[in-house]
Amino acid sequence: MIVVIKPEVDEEAILQIVQKLKRMGYGIHRSTGEKRTVLGAIGRRREDAAQTLEAIPEVEKVVYVTRPFKLVGREFQPRDTEIRIGNSSVGGKEIAVIAGPCAVESEQQLLDSARAVKSAGARFLRGGAFKPRTSPYSFQGLEQEGLGLLSRVGRETGLLVVTEVMDQFTVKQVAECADILQVGTRNMQNFYLLRELGKIRKPVLLKRGMSATVEEWLMAAEYIMSGGNYQVILCERGIRTFEPYTRNTLDLSAVPLVKELSHLPVIVDPSHGTGKKSLIPAMCKAAIAAGADGLMVEVHPSPGEALSDGPQSLNREEFLQLMADLKGVAQIVGRTI
Amino acid sequence: MIVVIKPEVDEEAILQIVQKLKRMGYGIHRSTGEKRTVLGAIGRRREDAAQTLEAIPEVEKVVYVTRPFKLVGREFQPRDTEIRIGNSSVGGKEIAVIAGPCAVESEQQLLDSARAVKSAGARFLRGGAFKPRTSPYSFQGLEQEGLGLLSRVGRETGLLVVTEVMDQFTVKQVAECADILQVGTRNMQNFYLLRELGKIRKPVLLKRGMSATVEEWLMAAEYIMSGGNYQVILCERGIRTFEPYTRNTLDLSAVPLVKELSHLPVIVDPSHGTGKKSLIPAMCKAAIAAGADGLMVEVHPSPGEALSDGPQSLNREEFLQLMADLKGVAQIVGRTI
Amino acid sequence: MIVVIKPEVDEEAILQIVQKLKRMGYGIHRSTGEKRTVLGAIGRRREDAAQTLEAIPEVEKVVYVTRPFKLVGREFQPRDTEIRIGNSSVGGKEIAVIAGPCAVESEQQLLDSARAVKSAGARFLRGGAFKPRTSPYSFQGLEQEGLGLLSRVGRETGLLVVTEVMDQFTVKQVAECADILQVGTRNMQNFYLLRELGKIRKPVLLKRGMSATVEEWLMAAEYIMSGGNYQVILCERGIRTFEPYTRNTLDLSAVPLVKELSHLPVIVDPSHGTGKKSLIPAMCKAAIAAGADGLMVEVHPSPGEALSDGPQSLNREEFLQLMADLKGVAQIVGRTI
Amino acid sequence: MIVVIKPEVDEEAILQIVQKLKRMGYGIHRSTGEKRTVLGAIGRRREDAAQTLEAIPEVEKVVYVTRPFKLVGREFQPRDTEIRIGNSSVGGKEIAVIAGPCAVESEQQLLDSARAVKSAGARFLRGGAFKPRTSPYSFQGLEQEGLGLLSRVGRETGLLVVTEVMDQFTVKQVAECADILQVGTRNMQNFYLLRELGKIRKPVLLKRGMSATVEEWLMAAEYIMSGGNYQVILCERGIRTFEPYTRNTLDLSAVPLVKELSHLPVIVDPSHGTGKKSLIPAMCKAAIAAGADGLMVEVHPSPGEALSDGPQSLNREEFLQLMADLKGVAQIVGRTI
Repeated sequence: MIVVIKPEVDEEAILQIVQKLKRMGYGIHRSTGEKRTVLGAIGRRREDAAQTLEAIPEVEKVVYVTRPFKLVGREFQPRDTEIRIGNSSVGGKEIAVIAGPCAVESEQQLLDSARAVKSAGARFLRGGAFKPRTSPYSFQGLEQEGLGLLSRVGRETGLLVVTEVMDQFTVKQVAECADILQVGTRNMQNFYLLRELGKIRKPVLLKRGMSATVEEWLMAAEYIMSGGNYQVILCERGIRTFEPYTRNTLDLSAVPLVKELSHLPVIVDPSHGTGKKSLIPAMCKAAIAAGADGLMVEVHPSPGEALSDGPQSLNREEFLQLMADLKGVAQIVGRTI
Repeated sequence: MIVVIKPEVDEEAILQIVQKLKRMGYGIHRSTGEKRTVLGAIGRRREDAAQTLEAIPEVEKVVYVTRPFKLVGREFQPRDTEIRIGNSSVGGKEIAVIAGPCAVESEQQLLDSARAVKSAGARFLRGGAFKPRTSPYSFQGLEQEGLGLLSRVGRETGLLVVTEVMDQFTVKQVAECADILQVGTRNMQNFYLLRELGKIRKPVLLKRGMSATVEEWLMAAEYIMSGGNYQVILCERGIRTFEPYTRNTLDLSAVPLVKELSHLPVIVDPSHGTGKKSLIPAMCKAAIAAGADGLMVEVHPSPGEALSDGPQSLNREEFLQLMADLKGVAQIVGRTI
Repeated sequence: MIVVIKPEVDEEAILQIVQKLKRMGYGIHRSTGEKRTVLGAIGRRREDAAQTLEAIPEVEKVVYVTRPFKLVGREFQPRDTEIRIGNSSVGGKEIAVIAGPCAVESEQQLLDSARAVKSAGARFLRGGAFKPRTSPYSFQGLEQEGLGLLSRVGRETGLLVVTEVMDQFTVKQVAECADILQVGTRNMQNFYLLRELGKIRKPVLLKRGMSATVEEWLMAAEYIMSGGNYQVILCERGIRTFEPYTRNTLDLSAVPLVKELSHLPVIVDPSHGTGKKSLIPAMCKAAIAAGADGLMVEVHPSPGEALSDGPQSLNREEFLQLMADLKGVAQIVGRTI
Repeated sequence: MIVVIKPEVDEEAILQIVQKLKRMGYGIHRSTGEKRTVLGAIGRRREDAAQTLEAIPEVEKVVYVTRPFKLVGREFQPRDTEIRIGNSSVGGKEIAVIAGPCAVESEQQLLDSARAVKSAGARFLRGGAFKPRTSPYSFQGLEQEGLGLLSRVGRETGLLVVTEVMDQFTVKQVAECADILQVGTRNMQNFYLLRELGKIRKPVLLKRGMSATVEEWLMAAEYIMSGGNYQVILCERGIRTFEPYTRNTLDLSAVPLVKELSHLPVIVDPSHGTGKKSLIPAMCKAAIAAGADGLMVEVHPSPGEALSDGPQSLNREEFLQLMADLKGVAQIVGRTI
């Protein structure tokens, strides 16, 4: 940690800061420049230290030289994490494709979706039972009934089930029905939920918050891992920018960046990332080329009748075509699909 | 609702869309332009309709002509809402000042803070018992013990207590200790929490999400109001932008904008909004001049020892000076403080 | 154009607006809803009409149903534009690779760069003679001397030269030395420069402004095309967001989006888009997979000595490796490199 | 400057970096932590040094401890700059109010606007002769004829004239007609224009780029000052964010922030900052309360007929009322208007 002192601060005040740092357990290297003194504080990173120190009037700024994450970082584990789920895995050679409707609407709709997903060769079925919606007057999901349908349709089709968990108190309930528990973009910093997910031993798919930095996203994963659950899958799903043509701006550079900083697998959701069906095929190819370990795609038997996210949902034929088109790109980057 | 059809769509497809709209219960006005046909759908706004319609390949876009909020809007209630709490109120003539430490750290720290707040003339004490923190290794708050301290110190000093509630299951517990329940920026779209807050009859202070549009913020208030709790106070606390000098960008234009759209009171938090103590006095004055109904300010007896948010906390003397300085601005816009 | 009237506006005021629209040359379709009246104005789109109308107190909003661009749009020209330059082209089957140093620093540096570019198989040499720099105390480019070097080195190596033009008065001078004239991100809305570029008959590479929407970017291209120069190449180079790890956020979804809206070729600059050398190979692959017609990559013989953009420059070996790695991805999407 | 070395870099590589820094003229303080070595480089800040150093593979990051601006900074000149223009000034006790139409449309329109401005008590007349417009098909201004009208109407009414200069080659021409030369938001980093403005001895009003950080904005002012023209007025006019209700997000915290960092006067333009007439009065009051030295407001005799920016223009009566309302706020912060 580096503590930059403001210009023209007198010696006594500097010594007091040095003493404070020593009391906090740091070793000190002092560097006196022409205008400013800089203190190097050597020791374990403490998250609260920077805020405490920057509140001292004579301190200009505090700069950490180490990164805030530990367990998610490459320094903790250099090799890539592969998460095994049944006969499948996320983070291995095969690109994990998670597909299905935004919301579970009925048994028939889910079954039709699942069959489309299965026949195209994907291994994971997505579908929301609990739906976070901007308006209280929108369809909010089938909730418990939806969970049951997911579980049943998953078994029938042999697909692994991915579904969202919305709070810490339904973690167990969702964990009984789902093979992967999804944390939605609005819950990325729901720290109680993250803690609870740290206690289970099932994979968690952690979507990036729509305005979260990569560092905040990795820190959210750190919450789960610090509880003992090391099966975290990161999912880039677009960030909020000023561009109105797309629903979000899909940040594909986050894929190689996260792979550089962390050993965790990272997948991409171009459905929410763009909000436009016509852009999804190109962005799926780009995601795989960028090194993503998987894709999450919205598929609906009849998008024009969908209760949510219709404009970004592919129908059966479109999804079949997409899966066929992706094989070549996967192969060229040394993956299968 | 206006449905714009893509250019060169044939008559049959247009008629199918017209039929679909009629089945949804809308009356139709059709307008055929040089290149595009536009359908005006007349009837009650349905939140899901736009998504469903935009998924139809022949539809270019759907534009709502009405706003999505009902109970929070000026059309529902033209006159300003004033929320009475004990002998005080928010939204009345007097500017409501809520002050205190970011986190409750100890009885002594809270008591010292409360006395500073009280002696400067503020009526509301803030303090976090549950602290959402980006890192799992940061101080997370005193939790239940903190709630107890807040309650006791509030009674002793005669200050009304404002504190954050983090999930739907602690709403009752927090409601017993607090006079106003705060929803933090990360929870603005925690819809289960919002629903639970709709069931109680205590005021809720709803912070704007750090990347929420004004419309999404008002829709979050709509969740609470649609449950029957009409005592919602909106709090602008800065939005996330590319500017790195300040912690957030305080969007003061949201104050007159919200006042135009809604009857709810709106207050401003320049401590989080700027993250820099030196900017707080100017932004407090600006907030009142812009028409804010109140302020939320972090005050700590010793900011250089604070466990969180030290750099944006005022000490006792600074807060006393601030309150004195604000009287004139309040008066000039017809308010008291 | 659709004109939404505010609720409870009386008939007389509506008739005045109808008259105004008729005087502007529009045919009118009127649609009277429960609360609001909506007017469909049929006729040629006029850019100024919306602002003029929205200034009328009784008008709530004006929505265009057509897009503002004409010549750049797919409606004007459905088939893809391919721009021929010497024996090469941009927008054809072969991915156009433009590589070279950020700034021309010396003859030796440029020659070394050009040879590295050439030997890896790229056909276009980039290099800045005029450098826009945030600080007046930074290296500002060799200017006229740099142009001469580019021209000479281009001829010697058989590479086509791409270089930035900074204002309307040097367009001719730069056009004499360069095969493609680049408009930098800060100049995307320098409308005098765009007009001047409309008068020449050489290809223009138009970088997206760092905070420009896709529509504003296409309108900038429309400026050039409306002057008669139809040889415009669009270049996505990252937009400004809140994410600090990368210099910009590379918006790859802009590639298929622009291809959908426009017939112009679009290339990608991952060097500026990410600012980090380690992310460039992955983003080059992703760009090609997303459908980009070309790449712009910074290559420097010795990045650790570069006067600008060192951290995002590849050295000779890294670029050679990159070009080899890209062949497979290009092939899989039906392109060559 | 602090140079953080990556973990596990060997001694030889560190020594090479130390040698390189010494050759660049820096004195070195070395601090060896548990995992990372940190080098403090003592000496004059060089803008290019960070980029050069970060391109070295063993360097993790470079942090400047000093700020990049010199002449605009408080360290260079501690007291506030007041710029005298005729009998008026910007940065003194009196709030400078600059008002008038977005574009000069005709002599009558300008004269009517000027009389409205004058009678309300403002001293500065604004009006655009050269208009940067997103679409090539929009009204582009009366250009030379508009300059002549401004000059004539300014003389007739006794108002000082503020108008935009669009490139370096018209600086002299505009300087002959205008009392203050305005640099628009799209030109904030038009470095050739800034350099030319550094050569004249007339005040320059420098608008903040719509996606410029405060530091980049101050560096643009540094360009002008480094040429010898010390009469720079900064103008906050809103930044681009994700919020769609307002045209831009007016960043009022930039006012006290700039005042802390710089001695230059800073004014606020709530017309462009919000894009909505109804928000302008509140934001004018807030700007003055925040410490702004002036305001820039669009006034048009008939906003519903304006060729540009009608929705954000006040008419004569609204402006008269606004000026009356501002007197109290100005007085309370020790200013006059």
